[in-house]
Amino acid sequence: MSNSALNWQVVAQEGEARAGVLQTRRSLIETPVFMPVGTAGTVKGMRFESLESEELDARIILGNTYHLWLRPGAEVIRACGGLHRFTGWERALLTDSGGFQVWSLGALRKLREEGVEFRSHVDGSARFLSPEVSMEVQAALGSEIVMVFDECAPCEASHEVARASLELTARWAARSRRRFDELQRDESDAGRTPEHHPSVNGEQALFGIVQGASHGDLRRESLARTVEIGFDGYAIGGLSVGEEKPVMYDTIEMLAPLMPQDRPRYLMGVGTPEDLLEAVARGVDMFDCVLPTRNARTGQAFTSRGKLNIKNARWTTDTRPLDETCACSVCRRHTRAYLRYLYATGEMLAGILLTHHNLAFFLDTMRWVRQAIRSGDFTRFRREFLERYNSGVE
Amino acid sequence: MSNSALNWQVVAQEGEARAGVLQTRRSLIETPVFMPVGTAGTVKGMRFESLESEELDARIILGNTYHLWLRPGAEVIRACGGLHRFTGWERALLTDSGGFQVWSLGALRKLREEGVEFRSHVDGSARFLSPEVSMEVQAALGSEIVMVFDECAPCEASHEVARASLELTARWAARSRRRFDELQRDESDAGRTPEHHPSVNGEQALFGIVQGASHGDLRRESLARTVEIGFDGYAIGGLSVGEEKPVMYDTIEMLAPLMPQDRPRYLMGVGTPEDLLEAVARGVDMFDCVLPTRNARTGQAFTSRGKLNIKNARWTTDTRPLDETCACSVCRRHTRAYLRYLYATGEMLAGILLTHHNLAFFLDTMRWVRQAIRSGDFTRFRREFLERYNSGVE
Repeated sequence: MSNSALNWQVVAQEGEARAGVLQTRRSLIETPVFMPVGTAGTVKGMRFESLESEELDARIILGNTYHLWLRPGAEVIRACGGLHRFTGWERALLTDSGGFQVWSLGALRKLREEGVEFRSHVDGSARFLSPEVSMEVQAALGSEIVMVFDECAPCEASHEVARASLELTARWAARSRRRFDELQRDESDAGRTPEHHPSVNGEQALFGIVQGASHGDLRRESLARTVEIGFDGYAIGGLSVGEEKPVMYDTIEMLAPLMPQDRPRYLMGVGTPEDLLEAVARGVDMFDCVLPTRNARTGQAFTSRGKLNIKNARWTTDTRPLDETCACSVCRRHTRAYLRYLYATGEMLAGILLTHHNLAFFLDTMRWVRQAIRSGDFTRFRREFLERYNSGVE
Repeated sequence: MSNSALNWQVVAQEGEARAGVLQTRRSLIETPVFMPVGTAGTVKGMRFESLESEELDARIILGNTYHLWLRPGAEVIRACGGLHRFTGWERALLTDSGGFQVWSLGALRKLREEGVEFRSHVDGSARFLSPEVSMEVQAALGSEIVMVFDECAPCEASHEVARASLELTARWAARSRRRFDELQRDESDAGRTPEHHPSVNGEQALFGIVQGASHGDLRRESLARTVEIGFDGYAIGGLSVGEEKPVMYDTIEMLAPLMPQDRPRYLMGVGTPEDLLEAVARGVDMFDCVLPTRNARTGQAFTSRGKLNIKNARWTTDTRPLDETCACSVCRRHTRAYLRYLYATGEMLAGILLTHHNLAFFLDTMRWVRQAIRSGDFTRFRREFLERYNSGVE
C-alpha cells in the first residue's frame, strides 16, 4: 500500500466473490461491507449508539462533502476538530467528493476545466467546487477514506460526451491526488487527533473513481488511467443512475477482473439487496446506498421476502413483526399494526424504527454474505436468498 | 387498598415531601415520580429501549385516551391485545380519561349531563365521550392506572360556574367508578394477558380527580366528594392551565394535607423543574408533563443551570455538552455545536437527542429528589437546585 492509513487483504474467495478485512485508522471493517449513508453528518433518525450496537455494528458510514461544505461549512467542522469530533461518531468515515451531487444539479451547474460553478441549494450563494477545494474540505472533515473529485457522465451519454467526461475525470483525479498528498504532508487532516484518540494515526486514504458511462472501451480506459495515478482503492462511479440492470451488471463484470486485486473495489450508490448480491458475485467489496434509510422514511421495509409497504391497510391489526425471520430489536418488539399506525399518524418513531430495521436487514445480509464466502457457500446462499426475497411478503 | 392492582407506601418523609414505593401490576415505581408523556402510544422520538435503559429507567408513561380512541381506535388496540401489546411497552401505563382533551376543544364541544359531544380533530366525525365510554376505552387500553372522566373548569371560572362543574365532575366520578367496577368484574381489561405476561395480574387501578378551579372551598368540597366515592389514588386536576404560580402552589398546599395519607397524590400536567420541586415540597407524589418532550422538539433544552435555546448562534462552534454536569448519553457524546447544527438543518436527530436529554434531566431530578427525601436532605437539595437552576446557562 502506498498509504499506511489503509490495509486490506482478501481472506476468502469463491468465484469472483471475495471476503476481506480492511483496516482503517479508526476501525476494522470486514468486506464486503455496506456503508449506511449519513449525508449531513447523521444517518437520519439513527442514534450512533444503535449503529454501534452489536445488533447493527456498522463499522463505517458515509458523509457527503457537498452537504457538509454548504452547511455547517468546513470551517465550523474544522473548528470543532473534524467530522468525527463534530458529530461524535468515532468509527470510520468515508466522504464522497461532491462530484456526484454537483452533477445532480444538472442545468444549475456550470462546468469548466478548473471546476464546477453552481448555486448553493441552501442560500443561493455562488459556489465553486474543484478537485483542490474538495480535497481541502475532506481534509477538514478528516474522514478515513477520501474520494477524488470526478465528473459523472449521464448513463445515456454518447461515446463522444462520455470520452470528454472521462478525460476531465482523469485530469481531476491527478489534481485530486496532488492536492491530497500536499495536505497529508502538511498534516492538514482534522481527523488526526492523537491527544483524544491515541489509536488514530496514519494518513487519510484516497480512492480513485472509474467513469465512462455505458461504453466498455471507455470504462477500461478510465480504469487504466486511474490505476496509473495510483490510489488506495478504486470505485466504480456513474452506475445506478437510471441505466438498465444488465448494463450495470455487465459493466461490473467487465471491469472487476481488470481492477487491482489487492485494492478494495467500491461500487458507489448501489443498491437493492439483489444488486448487492449480484455485485458481490462479480467482485465488489464496498457499497453505500440511501435505499434502507430513505425508503424507511416513506414507509418501505425490506424483509427476507421482499419489500413491505407499511402503509397498507391489511396490516391494521396484524400482530406479526415486519419480518418473522429478523432478530432485530424492532422485529423483536413491534408489530406491523403498530408501525402502520405510527406511520399513518406521522409519528417520528415510524421513521426511526423502519430505518433501524432496514439497516439491520442490509447489514445482516452483508454479514451472511461474508460468512457464506468464508465457508465457500456463497453461490448457494445467493440463490436461496434471492428465491426467498422474490417470493413476496405474506 | 380496595384494589389488588396497586399498593403504595411511604418509605421516607421530610416535612410534607414524601418518598414512596408504588407497586403496579407491571412495574415497581418509586415516588415522587415523573411520567413521560406518550400521548399517542409513543413518547415522541424515543425508542422504548432508551426509556427502559438504566440511564432513564422510566417505570411508567402516560397515554392519552382521547387520541388513542380516535386513532387507531379502541377496537384496533383491543384486537392487538391492549396498549402494551399494541405498542410493545411492557412497563406500567397511566391513561388519562379524555376529559382534559375534550375540555381543550373549547367551543367545539357540547357539554351535557350524559357526556360530551364533539367532532374528531382527525376526520371531523361526530363523537360522544362519557364516563362509561372513557372507562370502556381505558379497559381496552389495559393501562395499570385509569383516570375518572372529569370536567375541567377554566382557572378564572366564577364560583357559580366552578361549582356547577365540580358537581358534574362528582356525578361523573361516581358513574366512572360504577362502570369501571363492572368492567373489572367482567374481566374486560385488555391489559390482563397472563398467558404472555404471567407477572401481570390483578385489576386496573382507578384514580379520582379533584376540581374546583381557584376556589378553596370548592376544592375542599370536590376532594371530600371524591374521597367519599373512594379511589386507589387522587389527582389534582385543573391546575397549570393558565393561572398564576402562587395560585397553583397555594391550592396544592391547601389540598395536600387534606388528601388521604395512604394514597398517592397526582398533580396532572405539571410542570417545570421548579414546579416539581415546589409540589413535592407540598406533598405531591406523581407528575406528568409534555414540557421535556414537546420543548425538545422546538429546540429547548433543560439543564442544571436553566433552559438553553439550541437555536442560538453562540453555540455554532461550542464543543461543550448541553449540560456539563449531566451524565446522559447525549451529553457524554454530543456538543452544543452539533445539536445546534442538527436543529438548524431540520434533522430528525435533533429532536431525538434533545428529547432524550430533557427526559434524562427530569428523571434524574426526580431521582435526586427521592434520594434527598430518603436521606432527610430535601430542603437543602431544593434550595441548592433552584439556586443553580436560576443561575443561567453560560
